[in-house]
Amino acid sequence: MALANHFYQNLAGSYLFSEIAKRVNKYSAENPDKKIIRLGIGDVTKPLPPSVIAALHKAVDEQATAEGFRGYGPEQGYDFLRETIVNDCFAQFGFEKDEIFVSDGAKSDIGNFQELFDISCKVAITDPVYPVYADSNVMAGRAEAQKDGRFQGIIYLSCTSENNFVPELPKERPDIIYLCYPNNPTGTVLTKEQLKIWVDYARANESIILFDSAYEAFIRTPGIPHSIYEIEGAKECAVEFRSYSKIAGFTGLRCGYVVIPRNLSLKTKNGGSAALRDLWLRRQTTKYNGTPYVVQRAAQAVHGEQGKKEVKELIDAYLLNAKHIREGFANMGLTVYGGVDAPYVWLKLPINDSWKFFDELLNQVNIVGTPGQGFGLCGEGYFRLTAFGSYENTLEAVERLKKFKF
Amino acid sequence: MALANHFYQNLAGSYLFSEIAKRVNKYSAENPDKKIIRLGIGDVTKPLPPSVIAALHKAVDEQATAEGFRGYGPEQGYDFLRETIVNDCFAQFGFEKDEIFVSDGAKSDIGNFQELFDISCKVAITDPVYPVYADSNVMAGRAEAQKDGRFQGIIYLSCTSENNFVPELPKERPDIIYLCYPNNPTGTVLTKEQLKIWVDYARANESIILFDSAYEAFIRTPGIPHSIYEIEGAKECAVEFRSYSKIAGFTGLRCGYVVIPRNLSLKTKNGGSAALRDLWLRRQTTKYNGTPYVVQRAAQAVHGEQGKKEVKELIDAYLLNAKHIREGFANMGLTVYGGVDAPYVWLKLPINDSWKFFDELLNQVNIVGTPGQGFGLCGEGYFRLTAFGSYENTLEAVERLKKFKF
Repeated sequence: MALANHFYQNLAGSYLFSEIAKRVNKYSAENPDKKIIRLGIGDVTKPLPPSVIAALHKAVDEQATAEGFRGYGPEQGYDFLRETIVNDCFAQFGFEKDEIFVSDGAKSDIGNFQELFDISCKVAITDPVYPVYADSNVMAGRAEAQKDGRFQGIIYLSCTSENNFVPELPKERPDIIYLCYPNNPTGTVLTKEQLKIWVDYARANESIILFDSAYEAFIRTPGIPHSIYEIEGAKECAVEFRSYSKIAGFTGLRCGYVVIPRNLSLKTKNGGSAALRDLWLRRQTTKYNGTPYVVQRAAQAVHGEQGKKEVKELIDAYLLNAKHIREGFANMGLTVYGGVDAPYVWLKLPINDSWKFFDELLNQVNIVGTPGQGFGLCGEGYFRLTAFGSYENTLEAVERLKKFKF
Repeated sequence: MALANHFYQNLAGSYLFSEIAKRVNKYSAENPDKKIIRLGIGDVTKPLPPSVIAALHKAVDEQATAEGFRGYGPEQGYDFLRETIVNDCFAQFGFEKDEIFVSDGAKSDIGNFQELFDISCKVAITDPVYPVYADSNVMAGRAEAQKDGRFQGIIYLSCTSENNFVPELPKERPDIIYLCYPNNPTGTVLTKEQLKIWVDYARANESIILFDSAYEAFIRTPGIPHSIYEIEGAKECAVEFRSYSKIAGFTGLRCGYVVIPRNLSLKTKNGGSAALRDLWLRRQTTKYNGTPYVVQRAAQAVHGEQGKKEVKELIDAYLLNAKHIREGFANMGLTVYGGVDAPYVWLKLPINDSWKFFDELLNQVNIVGTPGQGFGLCGEGYFRLTAFGSYENTLEAVERLKKFKF
C-alpha cells in the first residue's frame, strides 16, 4: 500500500469549525424548535453589493458571446484587475501591477504560500491565531505535535490581556513570521510604531513577514496602518495578503490577492537567490489555473466609486453590530477587546474553559460563538464573537444575553 | 535570508506554454500584419452554453438578496452539485455523494493531490505527458532533474507509435500511477481490456491510479471506457479527476471534481491506514475555501437535459474541427493519431525536432501548435494540434497547410 504523507498525522484530530458544527448540529437535532443565532464562524450575511452584482451579470453576458468569451486567463490574474488594485491601493508605495497576484482567496494563498520555503525554515505565529498558518506548516513537515496542543518547531508569540495583545519579539530567529492585523481572532490592531518594531526586526534578521490584512477595511481609527507597506522598509521583508471576502461579501464568490515586492528573495541551496515573486508564479502556473473571469470583474467593481460607497455601508453596518456585541457582554461584566477596527469581539472569560462557555451560551441562549481555545493555548479563557450576523439577529442575541447566567 | 524550497530548483527552466507564448509574441511583434491561428494551447473558444449562462444569471440574482445569499460553502462542494454528479455519472458504479469532491478545476486537483502521499512514494507517468503530473511531484521533492530532461525518481512509461501509444507495465513498482484517457497530448484512448491490465496491476501491487478523464465527453467510439470505474476492481485502486473545462467551456469559469472511493486508503507510518478521502478533505478544508456558489450552479446546469444537448453540440463541433485537422495533415503525407475520441491530433513528424517544426509552422503559415518535446522525451518527433479553434479558423488553417513546405 502506498504511504500517506505522514506529516498529516501531526495535525490535531479535528478542525475547529467542524467541531463547532458538530456540536451545533447535535443541539439543533435535539432542540428543533430553538432558533440558533450564529456569531461563530466569520462568514458574512449581507448580500453582494449592487455594483458587484451588475459587474457579474455583465461579465456573464460577455461569456455568452463568441466575441466576449474568455477561457483560460493568466494564472496571476487579468491585467485589468491587477492594474485596478495597484492603482487603488499600492501605487502609493511604489508597487507595479506585476507585483500583484490574484487568487481565489486569502485562505488558498496563505495555505499554499509556505510551500515556497524550505522545509527547514522556522515559523513564528502569534497565539491565538487563525489555524491555517500553523496547520499548513504542519502538513509540510515543519512542525510536530506536542502534548499541550502546540507544535514543536513553531515559535509562538503569546498575545494575551497581559501584553495587551501586542506580540513580543521572539528569542529565537524565525525565517517566516505570520502577522494578521486587524487581528483574527482578537480583533485588536497594531499602531505604526508597534508594527515598525516587527519590520525592523525582520530586516535585521532577514526574516520574511507574511502579513494578512484581510480585515483592513474595518479600520476606522485614524493612524492605524491598513497595509504593512505604510511602514518604511516593509518592501524589503514583507508579503501582504488581501481578500474581498469580508470587505465586499465575497466569501462565496472567492477572490483575494497577494502583494509580493519585486526585490524580495529567498536564498537557494547553491548559494544563489530566487525572487519570491518568481517562485509564487511557478507554483501558481503549475497548480492553479486562474480566478474565474466573472469573479475578477466583480472584484474590479469593488474598487469603483460606487463600489467603495456600497462597501463602506456594508462595513459600517457590521461595525455597528460589533458595537452592540461589545456593549452586551460588557454589560454582563465581562472585559471585551477588539470590535472597534475589526469585525471580531474577543471576550475575556471568568473561567479558563472556553468550550464550557461555548456549550453554556449555546444551551442557555442558543448563541454560537467560537471558543478561544480553538485558536491556540493563549486563547483559552477567551471567546470570539463575530459581527457578521444580521442587525436583527445581533440585537436579539444581545437581548438574550440579559438572561444568560455564567 | 530564508531558504527557498530547493526542490523548485529541479524544475525545468520554463513552462511549456510560457515558452510558446514568448515565441508567438516575438513573431507577432515583428509581423504585426499577420493573422495568427492558435491551435496550440488547449483552450476552448466557443462561448458558454445557454443553460450555463442562465444558471449563472439566476445564481448571481440569488447572491443579491439577503434570503438567497450564500457565503462560505462546504470546501468539498455543495450537496446539490455532488448529488447531481453522482446521480448522473457515478451512481451506476455504486458511488455516493460523499465520494465526490468539487473544486476549481482538474489542474488544481491533480497538482495538489500528490501532497497526500509521502515524499518517498514512487511515481509513474506516461511519456509524453501533461507537464503538471511530473512538475507537481518535482516541487514536492519526489524527483530530481537529469541531463536528458527527464527526472530521476520518476518511472516513465513510453508511449510512441511503436507501441501504438499503449503504455507497458513498469518493471519497478510505482506507488502512484498517472493515467489520462482520452490522452493529452496524443489524443489516443485505451480499450476496456487495455485499461483492465492497469487496474489489475494496481490491485496486485497496491498502487494508486490517478485517472485523469478530463476529455471523456469526446469519446464517440462505442465501448471505449469513459470512466475507469467501468473496469472491475477500479474502486479498489483508482481516483478519477473530471473537469467541466473542455466539456462545457469552463476554462475561464473553473470547476472540476475528483471521485475518491470510500474504501481507498494509504498506509500510515505507525502501521495503520488513512482513508484517502479523509486526507483530501483535510487538505481542502485547510488550504481551500470552496468553489464559487455561482460556478457550482453553472456546473449543475451542465448535467440537465438541455445542458447535455448543448454540450453535445459543442463537442460535435470541436470533433468536426479535429477531423479537418487530421485530414489536412494527412494530405501533407504526415501520419496522424488521435482526434477521433479526443480534441487533440498528434502528428508524427518527418524530423526529430518538434521546436523546429513549431517555428516553421509559425513562420510559414502563422499556425501555432505545441511541440511534442514539451510533453516529454518520447514526444520529440511529434506535434500536437488542438481542435478548440473556431470552425472558420480551423478551415483556414487547413487551407494554409496546402502552402506549407516541410
